[in-house]
Amino acid sequence: MILDASMTTLVEQMLAGQQRPLARLISMVEREESSIPALMQYLSPHLGKAYSIGVTGPPGGGKSTLVDKLTVLLRQRGLSVGIIAADPSSPFSGGALLGDRIRMQQHYLDAGVFIRSMATQGSHGGLARSVKDVMRVMDAAGKDVILVETVGVGQTELDIVQTTDTTLVLLVPEGGDAIQTLKAGLMEIADIFVVNKADREGADRLMQELRMMLELTHAENGWEVPVVATQAHQGTGIEELYRTIEAHRRFLEASGQLQQRRALHRRNELWELVERRVRQRLSAQAQKNETLAALVEQVMQGTVDPHSAASRMLDDAESLCRWLRAERSS
Amino acid sequence: MILDASMTTLVEQMLAGQQRPLARLISMVEREESSIPALMQYLSPHLGKAYSIGVTGPPGGGKSTLVDKLTVLLRQRGLSVGIIAADPSSPFSGGALLGDRIRMQQHYLDAGVFIRSMATQGSHGGLARSVKDVMRVMDAAGKDVILVETVGVGQTELDIVQTTDTTLVLLVPEGGDAIQTLKAGLMEIADIFVVNKADREGADRLMQELRMMLELTHAENGWEVPVVATQAHQGTGIEELYRTIEAHRRFLEASGQLQQRRALHRRNELWELVERRVRQRLSAQAQKNETLAALVEQVMQGTVDPHSAASRMLDDAESLCRWLRAERSS
Repeated sequence: MILDASMTTLVEQMLAGQQRPLARLISMVEREESSIPALMQYLSPHLGKAYSIGVTGPPGGGKSTLVDKLTVLLRQRGLSVGIIAADPSSPFSGGALLGDRIRMQQHYLDAGVFIRSMATQGSHGGLARSVKDVMRVMDAAGKDVILVETVGVGQTELDIVQTTDTTLVLLVPEGGDAIQTLKAGLMEIADIFVVNKADREGADRLMQELRMMLELTHAENGWEVPVVATQAHQGTGIEELYRTIEAHRRFLEASGQLQQRRALHRRNELWELVERRVRQRLSAQAQKNETLAALVEQVMQGTVDPHSAASRMLDDAESLCRWLRAERSS
Repeated sequence: MILDASMTTLVEQMLAGQQRPLARLISMVEREESSIPALMQYLSPHLGKAYSIGVTGPPGGGKSTLVDKLTVLLRQRGLSVGIIAADPSSPFSGGALLGDRIRMQQHYLDAGVFIRSMATQGSHGGLARSVKDVMRVMDAAGKDVILVETVGVGQTELDIVQTTDTTLVLLVPEGGDAIQTLKAGLMEIADIFVVNKADREGADRLMQELRMMLELTHAENGWEVPVVATQAHQGTGIEELYRTIEAHRRFLEASGQLQQRRALHRRNELWELVERRVRQRLSAQAQKNETLAALVEQVMQGTVDPHSAASRMLDDAESLCRWLRAERSS
C-alpha cells in the first residue's frame, strides 16, 4: 500500500496547511476510493492531536448556532477548527438546505475554520464510517478542535457522536420532557447536557428533571455529567460551556480514559471495515460464481431462508476462502 | 441443521396457534441463539402469508394510539394481529416505560393479538435484524397482519420500517414543518403519510406542504403517496387509513412489487448475516491467535490504522482462511 506521486503531493500540501488539498482529500474519503487505506497509513504519524466534540440532540434545538458560537470562541483563543455537519438522512448532497451556505460565508475568509457537510451514503453505517475518516483527515491537517454536529438523534447519529472525545447533548424546553430524552438513548451518551433557549418557559423544569435523572443513573466512569444552560443566539453561556468541555477533557486525560476511549473506537472501526469488505467481496463474487449466485437466487425466491444460506456460505470454509481469494485477484 | 426434539415440539405448538410457545421462540430469536438458522429453515414453508405494516415518525405523535386503533379495526374484520414495538435506544428491556403494560392489558384476553416490545441490542443493526426474525416467527404463527412501530425516526428505525410491506409515516402539526420531515429521510420511505391530531392548528398547512413536496418528488414506482388525516384518540380517520393501506397492498400485488420488495429484503438480510458472522469469527479468533491479536493491539495503540489492518487481515487469503476455518471447528 503505497500512495502514488500525485496523492503524496496532495497530502503533503494538506499537511502544510493548504485548504484546497484538504477539501479534495475529504472528497476522496467520502467516495471511499481504493487509495484510502494507503492514505490513512500515510496519515498515521500525524494523528491524535485534535480534540473532538460531538453535538447532538433533536432537530430545531439550535445545534448549528451553538457550533458557530463555540467556533467563534475557539478562534478567539487561537485554536483552528474543523466542523463536520453530519446528516444521515438527507437525500441532498452537502446538506446545503440547512443554511450551510450562510455558515460557510461567515467563516469564508478565515483559514482557521474548515466546514464540511456530509449526507447519507447508503445504509449500513456508511456515513458514520466516513465521518470517522474525515475527522482523521482534519486531525492530520492540524485542526486543534473538531466539532461534529448531527441533524437528528437516531442510531447513526449516536454512532457518530460516540466516537468523539466529548459528547454534548443539546435540548430545548419545548422539546418535551426528560423521559423522551431517556427514550432516545441520549442519557447514555451525554458527557455534558446543554439546555439551550434557557430563557424560555420550562427551562428550569427541564434542567431539574435532567439533574434528577442523572443522579439516578450513577456515573460509572467517575464523571458527573453537568447540565449547562445556554442561549446560543445571544452567546449566553458559551463561555461556561467551553470551561465545562475543558474540564471534561482534563478529566479524561488525567484518568487515562481518553486513550482508552480512542483505542476502543479504533478497534471497533477495524471490525466494521472488515465486515464491510467481506460483504463487498462476496456480493461481487455472487455476480460471477454460479454456486453462489444460485444460493442468492434461492434466498430471493424464499426457498432458502437467509440464515440457512449464510450458514451454508460460511460453514463451507473451503468455498468461502476460494470466493474471498478469487475476488481479491480479480 | 436440524432442530432438536424439544425445539420441534415448541415450534409445532406455535404453528398450532399457542401463544406461550410463540413468546418463547421470539425470546430465543432476540437472544440470537445458535439454533436460529435451523429454526428459520424449519419455518420457511410457513412464511409469506402475513402482511406487514410499519409505523414511524417523531416521538409523541401518537403512533402507539394509531397502532391500537388499527388493531381494533383489524380484529373487527376477523384478522389476527402481531405488534412489534421497536425501540433502538431504550436501555430498558421491553419498553415497559411507554405504557406497554397498559396496552398489553387492553388486549390481554384476546388471543388474536400478540404484542412484543423489543429494545436495543448492541449497535450494528442488531435490533433491525432481530425485528425481521421476529416478524418471520409471527408470520409462521399465522398472524394475518404484523404492525411494526418504532419509537423514534433514526437510521435504525428507517431500516426497520423499510422491511415492511407498507410504511406509514405519522406526523403531527406541531411537529414542525415539512422540511424537517424531508431532512429526517421520511419522504423517501413513506408509502402513506398520516397527519395525526388533524384537528389542531396547522394541520391543513402541513397536509398542503406534504402534498406539494410529494408532487415535486415524482413517484418512481407508480404509487402516488397519499396523505391521510386522523385523530387517532377519537378513532377518526382510521377507517379511511385502513382503506388506503388496502389500496397500497393491492397496488403492490398487482404490479408484482410485493414479491420484488420481499426478495430484495431477503437478499439484503443474507449479506447482513454473512458480514456479522465473519466479524464474530474473526474477533473470537483475535482472542486466541497471536498474529491477529498483535494486529488488533497495534490498531488500539494507534500504530497501525484500521484501514491498513483490515487490508492486512483480508489480503492475506491464506491466513484469513485459516482463521475462519479454525473458528468454525472450535
